[in-house]
Amino acid sequence: MVIQTNIESAMQAHLDNLTKPRGSLGKLETYCIKMARIQHQVPPKIEKKGIYVFAGDHGIVAEGVSLYPPEVTYQMVLNFLAGGAAINSLAGGTGWELTAVDAGVAGDFPPDEALHPICRFIRAKIGKGSRNFYQTPALTAEELEQALAKGRDLAVDAQQQGYDLVAIGDMGIGNTSTAAAMLIAAGFPADDMTDRGTGIDTAMLEHKRQVIKEAVRVRNPAKTGTAILEQLGSFDLAMMAGLILGLEGTGIACILDGFPVTSAAYMAAMIQPAVRDYLFAGHLSKVSGHKPVLDALGLSPILSLDMHLGEGTGAVIGGHIIELGVLAARNMASFSSAGISDTDKAEEKY
Amino acid sequence: MVIQTNIESAMQAHLDNLTKPRGSLGKLETYCIKMARIQHQVPPKIEKKGIYVFAGDHGIVAEGVSLYPPEVTYQMVLNFLAGGAAINSLAGGTGWELTAVDAGVAGDFPPDEALHPICRFIRAKIGKGSRNFYQTPALTAEELEQALAKGRDLAVDAQQQGYDLVAIGDMGIGNTSTAAAMLIAAGFPADDMTDRGTGIDTAMLEHKRQVIKEAVRVRNPAKTGTAILEQLGSFDLAMMAGLILGLEGTGIACILDGFPVTSAAYMAAMIQPAVRDYLFAGHLSKVSGHKPVLDALGLSPILSLDMHLGEGTGAVIGGHIIELGVLAARNMASFSSAGISDTDKAEEKY
Repeated sequence: MVIQTNIESAMQAHLDNLTKPRGSLGKLETYCIKMARIQHQVPPKIEKKGIYVFAGDHGIVAEGVSLYPPEVTYQMVLNFLAGGAAINSLAGGTGWELTAVDAGVAGDFPPDEALHPICRFIRAKIGKGSRNFYQTPALTAEELEQALAKGRDLAVDAQQQGYDLVAIGDMGIGNTSTAAAMLIAAGFPADDMTDRGTGIDTAMLEHKRQVIKEAVRVRNPAKTGTAILEQLGSFDLAMMAGLILGLEGTGIACILDGFPVTSAAYMAAMIQPAVRDYLFAGHLSKVSGHKPVLDALGLSPILSLDMHLGEGTGAVIGGHIIELGVLAARNMASFSSAGISDTDKAEEKY
Repeated sequence: MVIQTNIESAMQAHLDNLTKPRGSLGKLETYCIKMARIQHQVPPKIEKKGIYVFAGDHGIVAEGVSLYPPEVTYQMVLNFLAGGAAINSLAGGTGWELTAVDAGVAGDFPPDEALHPICRFIRAKIGKGSRNFYQTPALTAEELEQALAKGRDLAVDAQQQGYDLVAIGDMGIGNTSTAAAMLIAAGFPADDMTDRGTGIDTAMLEHKRQVIKEAVRVRNPAKTGTAILEQLGSFDLAMMAGLILGLEGTGIACILDGFPVTSAAYMAAMIQPAVRDYLFAGHLSKVSGHKPVLDALGLSPILSLDMHLGEGTGAVIGGHIIELGVLAARNMASFSSAGISDTDKAEEKY
C-alpha cells in the first residue's frame, strides 16, 4: 500500500472538483498526480517541453549484429538537422523543442551545423563510437565519467531552457545490442532482451544472441550501473543516464522512449533508485525486452502502438498525452464555477 | 485474407521509402493506409479536424439509472460554450474545431448562444429528450427520420468546413442506458453491456440492469438499426448515426469516442455495413460493453487510458495520433532524398 502524500491528495481533490465524473479522465489523472508530486504544485504545469535525441555509434556492430551500416547514425543526425526524420514530424506535431546530441558519432559534423533553426545541435562527442565489447570493454572509466558529466550538463541545459518535461530519444546503429548486453548483465533473461532491432532476420538474430551472451559472459561486470555502462555501454546510453541522474531535484519530469533509452534509465536507476519518481514511460515498443524492463522500473507505458523506430518517437507522443491531462486539470471549470449540479452520492470506482 | 488494393500497396511503398526501418511506425502506418484508402490518395492529408459533440436527454433517467440529475446535460452544453469542459481543453490541445450540437436537450438555450467564439453551436433539437423507453417507444418514426436527416446535414457541414477527419462525442445524462438497451436488442449479452456510467454504485447498477433488460424485452424491436433506434434510441444517438451514414463517399474519416458513440456507430453499421470502412476507434473506454462492440465493428482502439468521460475526449486524442502518423508520412525524407544508406536485405516482420 502506498501512503498518499498531501500533494497527491490535494491534486486528486482538485481533479474531483472539475466538471466531469470523478476518475473519468482515467490514467490522465494518474499522470497529473505524478506531475504534481514531481513539481510540488497543484495543479502542475507543462509550458515547455524538450526532447534530446542522443546519437552515438556502437563498436559491437563490427560483429554483424545490425541490418543497417553504421554510417546511418551520422546520416540520420544530418536528417534530424534538416527536418526529415520521423522525430521532426512527431515532435513538431506535439509541440516539443528538438535537440540532437552528438554523444559519440563516428563521423565529424561540419562546423556550420552548430546552430540550427529546425533542431538544436549539441556537440558533446566523447569519442568516435564505443569500443566493440565483444573484444574489449566498451568505455574507459574516464570516458564513462565524461559521458555521465555531459549528461548532467544537459539537465542544466533543460533547466535553462525552461523545460517542464524532458523526453529522451536514441539514434545509434547497434544500440539495441548494447542495451540488451547491459540488461542481461543486470540480470534480465538473455533471450527476452535480444530482438530484431531494425528488423534483422532469424539467422542474424540467432547470431546477435550468441554474440551478446558471450560478450556479457566475458566482460562479466559487477552488478552496478557504472560497471555495466563501462564494460558494455556506449557514449550515447551513458550520457542519457547522466541526464536522467542530473534531473533529480529539478522538478523536471522525464519521459522515456523505447528499449535503448529504457536500458539507460535502468542503469541510472541502479545508480540512484529515486530517479524512478520522475520518470514516465512514453510507450511500449515492439521490442521484446522493453516490457520486463519497464515493469522492473515500475513504469506503465502510456501508449502501445507497435512502434519500434526510436529517436524518441514514442516518448513525444506519450509526453503530449501527459500534457493534455495537465491542460485539462488547469483549464477545466469546477462544478461550482460552471453552475453545474454535482452529485453528493458516493461513487464507486470502475 | 484481405486482398490489398492498389492504393494500400502504394501507401505501404511510400512508407517503406521513408527514412526509418520498415514497419517501425507500427500502427501509425496502419492508420495512414486506412486514411489513404478513405481519401483515395497517397499520402493522405489531415489539414482540418472537427469534432461534433451531440447533446440530448434520455427519458430512461426517470427510472433512476443515473447518478447525475438530467439538468446536467443542459448545464454541460453551456460549459462547452464557455470553454470549461474537458473536451474544450483536449480538443484545443490537439487542434480540433469543436461544435456542440443540441440534438434533443430538455432545456431551451438562450438565443445569444447561436454563434460562439470558443465552440460552434448547432441547434438541431428534435425534441426535449427522448421518451422513457421503459414505458413507451423512445422516438416516433418521424422523429427518428428527422434525427437521421439532421445528422446527414452535419456530414454536409463537415464537407463545407473542410474537415478531413470528424470526431463524434456525446453528452447526455442516461446515454449509457440507452446505448446498452440498443446493443442488447442488437444481440450483445445484457450483463456485459450495462456498466456504471458516470459511477453508480452496485445496488443502482443492479437496478439499471433490470430496468434495461425488461425494457428491451417489452419493446422487442426488430433487429434492424432503425427499429432499434426508434424503440430504444434517443435524438443524440440517432443523429450521430445519421452523421456517420452521411459521411459515406465523402472521403472524410470518422473517429469514435466511447460506449454511447460506438453504440450509435453500431446502429449505423446495421443500416449500412460499409460505414466501417471509414471509422476509427479513438480509445477503449473503461465501460465494460465497449470492447465487444468495437470487436464486432472490426475496430481496434488507438488508446486505452481507462477514460470514461465521454464528450469525445478519447476520440480527439486518438484522432490526433492518426494525424501524427499522416504528418510523418507527408513530411519525412526518403532514403534517397536524405542521402541515407538503405538496406537491401530482406527484413522480417516483428
